[in-house]
Amino acid sequence: MLDYKLYYWDLPFRGNFLQLLLEDVGANYKKFDASDVYPARGLTIKNPGMAPPYLYDCQGKTWYAQMPAILMHLGRKYDYLPKRAETLTLALKTILDANDVLMEITNYNGSMMWQKSTWEEFRCGRLADWMQIFEKTGNDHGLKGGAGFLLGARISVADIAVAALFGTMVHSFPTLRGDLQEHAPNIAILCQRIEARPAILHFLDRQREESGRGYCGGQIEGSLRKMIEG
Amino acid sequence: MLDYKLYYWDLPFRGNFLQLLLEDVGANYKKFDASDVYPARGLTIKNPGMAPPYLYDCQGKTWYAQMPAILMHLGRKYDYLPKRAETLTLALKTILDANDVLMEITNYNGSMMWQKSTWEEFRCGRLADWMQIFEKTGNDHGLKGGAGFLLGARISVADIAVAALFGTMVHSFPTLRGDLQEHAPNIAILCQRIEARPAILHFLDRQREESGRGYCGGQIEGSLRKMIEG
Repeated sequence: MLDYKLYYWDLPFRGNFLQLLLEDVGANYKKFDASDVYPARGLTIKNPGMAPPYLYDCQGKTWYAQMPAILMHLGRKYDYLPKRAETLTLALKTILDANDVLMEITNYNGSMMWQKSTWEEFRCGRLADWMQIFEKTGNDHGLKGGAGFLLGARISVADIAVAALFGTMVHSFPTLRGDLQEHAPNIAILCQRIEARPAILHFLDRQREESGRGYCGGQIEGSLRKMIEG
Repeated sequence: MLDYKLYYWDLPFRGNFLQLLLEDVGANYKKFDASDVYPARGLTIKNPGMAPPYLYDCQGKTWYAQMPAILMHLGRKYDYLPKRAETLTLALKTILDANDVLMEITNYNGSMMWQKSTWEEFRCGRLADWMQIFEKTGNDHGLKGGAGFLLGARISVADIAVAALFGTMVHSFPTLRGDLQEHAPNIAILCQRIEARPAILHFLDRQREESGRGYCGGQIEGSLRKMIEG
């Protein structure tokens, strides 16, 4: 019997935040297409949510929505949460920051397409600021000296979130690797270390073979590619 | 000596999620204007964040950003978190849902102004769906029969979030009270019960005397008023 069913599109965007953790801990889960739940059944399930990803806990027969809540839930289950009050709060804050970057880089979930001027303003402004926020958080905590993880000596959901955000971003849009190295050099190294963990590496190899550089899909991915790749 | 300094604008919007809890527990805190930190100092503080609200922990000399992370942090400190894994996760999910509604009702933090057609589509579509999501979550858990709180027999951060979201919304825009009563009747009652708690009532009386029906400020509040009030 499965422990979890994960419902998301065949894209890394928000799904990899959960899949990287599920893979790293060797959870007994299976991924299904988001359209099995969304939108038709979204409001009728127990604990309804507005949009994918959804996690179904097979033993508890319980649904969870909201990626940051699901990642914290799994983090608690698999001991991927920092212990101290400050770093525990920062772990959640890091996931929320990452979720905000996803929303901003898709221009609010694709509600507007990028224009050259708005994209360049975002890339040199808020995207650079976000990278520096992650970098400084790491340097204030676990990345001092470059050996540890974002918030301390042990891996946590914050490292999973950072890799799911920036590892995916620079894989899908290699031009942005330079931006990350400039504004967040220790975060760039951390992403590489997380992506090199055996179970995650195996998963990413398969995903990237199947989906190539696919990111968030839809018209907004087309708009992003047009901006970044010219 | 203060326990906390809270930095936010003189508006209820995201700030009341934190102030309702701080008031209900009688925390020794003081509110400061967000411009003391944002934007000039935002990237330089320890544990930097992108935008207000910020909470400064005076004893720990530590900064926290991201409203949902701050509310969970305070919830842990003051024993306002559910105990079971499912309801603990749902508490965070509820705060995140509320935060998404704030973003959507301001048309992505004011990035576009509302048009009559887009507002009506939102009001009858996603806003109604959101209200039903909160209602069903409550009915699946603590609001069965109408006596308890959202997720159980004890107050939690989820109740604070629901009151900060919908209590504020229908105070600022009384026309929307009918929408809430139609789509989420038990949530409407819950908001009234939370707003009637003595410390919260005292705080809201003062705030509403000073700020009237002010909501999120800026051009987007003007756009919302034009849509709702004709």
